[in-house]
Amino acid sequence: MVVDVEKRNRPIGVFDSGLGGLTVVRELFRTMPGEDIVYLGDSARVPYGIKSLETVRRFALEDAGFLLGQDLKLLVVACNTASAAAIEVISAASPVPVVDVIRPGVAAALAAGAGPVGVVATEATIRSGAYQRAIADADASREVHAVAAPLLVPIVEEGRADDDPIVTHVLCDYLHDLQRIRPASLILGCTHYPLLSGAIGKLMGPDTVLISSGQAAADEVRRRLEKDNAKNEKDTGGQLRCYTTDNPQRFAQLGERFGGRPVDVVEYVGTDELERYPHSG
Amino acid sequence: MVVDVEKRNRPIGVFDSGLGGLTVVRELFRTMPGEDIVYLGDSARVPYGIKSLETVRRFALEDAGFLLGQDLKLLVVACNTASAAAIEVISAASPVPVVDVIRPGVAAALAAGAGPVGVVATEATIRSGAYQRAIADADASREVHAVAAPLLVPIVEEGRADDDPIVTHVLCDYLHDLQRIRPASLILGCTHYPLLSGAIGKLMGPDTVLISSGQAAADEVRRRLEKDNAKNEKDTGGQLRCYTTDNPQRFAQLGERFGGRPVDVVEYVGTDELERYPHSG
Repeated sequence: MVVDVEKRNRPIGVFDSGLGGLTVVRELFRTMPGEDIVYLGDSARVPYGIKSLETVRRFALEDAGFLLGQDLKLLVVACNTASAAAIEVISAASPVPVVDVIRPGVAAALAAGAGPVGVVATEATIRSGAYQRAIADADASREVHAVAAPLLVPIVEEGRADDDPIVTHVLCDYLHDLQRIRPASLILGCTHYPLLSGAIGKLMGPDTVLISSGQAAADEVRRRLEKDNAKNEKDTGGQLRCYTTDNPQRFAQLGERFGGRPVDVVEYVGTDELERYPHSG
Repeated sequence: MVVDVEKRNRPIGVFDSGLGGLTVVRELFRTMPGEDIVYLGDSARVPYGIKSLETVRRFALEDAGFLLGQDLKLLVVACNTASAAAIEVISAASPVPVVDVIRPGVAAALAAGAGPVGVVATEATIRSGAYQRAIADADASREVHAVAAPLLVPIVEEGRADDDPIVTHVLCDYLHDLQRIRPASLILGCTHYPLLSGAIGKLMGPDTVLISSGQAAADEVRRRLEKDNAKNEKDTGGQLRCYTTDNPQRFAQLGERFGGRPVDVVEYVGTDELERYPHSG
């Protein structure tokens, strides 16, 4: 087998509407500590989850186009809303493999046990039906309970902790029906939600397995790179280079909470520059 | 005096980051039912209040540039965050008078009574210090208590009613100190907040006058047009034409709650088109 060393050394590209995708980066580094990562957070246009699917699709194609210009070996769509709206068009346009956060999360949820599957996600993700379709495609007999939870992203972005009373009140409001149903697994269908997993786990109880899309996506990336013989030979010291469409200092300040490590290198890229990238394959 | 009939018939331009500015449009129609209004809601990039002032300034200049291309007689910056970040640069670049929502709200709050003034607004507005400066400029002896309330915009956008328990919990959290201080007036420093004025008024009690920036701005627009002899001679039947950077159907559906009347005409304008407008005067 011909080993393409140059390819192995290329970075993985990851994008999200803002900071949330750094929770996926954290899982990527945990799984593959030697890989280099280029991250784009579209903080000037965050959040995607309250916008129409057409708009999210346009933004996601621009984000993907910008990262694909960085000589990647693989692209991760680390935003559930963008995955729901645009995974097909991005995959069709990409010369490298594309991993989203929906399909790996669904596979992990179905494998976690028999019984109903719960999904909590942004309004746009739930409205798109992407989780409902992905679960039906994999196992048409599974009962699915999907809940839109628009306030959870701003709550996490505000920096509220897991034990904040407002967090508890809002979660009780959204998870009320799911608590009664007691699903076998609950997909945290937004990259912000792992930061609330303590509170969500407490409310759902020990019978429901919480599925973080980030961890499932990182496992899928590892499998994909191993299959293509494209894993970096280093197993430590992977670098993280970030781009943001809003203020880089602010991104660096807030990013550590999401990524679990300091964000050293952040550069600004304007949305006007992103809009120069093609909108279709 | 030469009366410029053509000028009198021109529309007033109004922009906001999304739907919130329609609460200002409602006050404009209540005050001047014969004026035509062209509204731009930048729903694709909403909210502005969690973003850096540089980014908000850039977006606001684009929004203003687009509307100034519509042959206006006056421009209203119906977004507190945009007013805080960009009123000086917009005024400098505009060939027509510009009315913001901060200065009229401050004047109304100071006139409402002696004693401390409270301000509740988005994170970016409070961080900018615009309200604090405007109050100090008008009356340096006034005590000011400014509170950032990042969750209120998403709560209103989610459609939660004034009497929703989550609304009460979140307001109690933000207004805790202000309830103790009992200011003479409390400025609702974001165009979304008038939709929560029932709940806010109940928490603050009868001694605090709530100031809606929209009403104060509408009074200022009327004064300005009367001074310039530019009021429309019609006193009924003003038309509303809207543009949005996200899905027009969605804008029309949700807009009625904010504007208090059906939104009939909504057209799409892309953020890529907005970005063609100059970023400085």
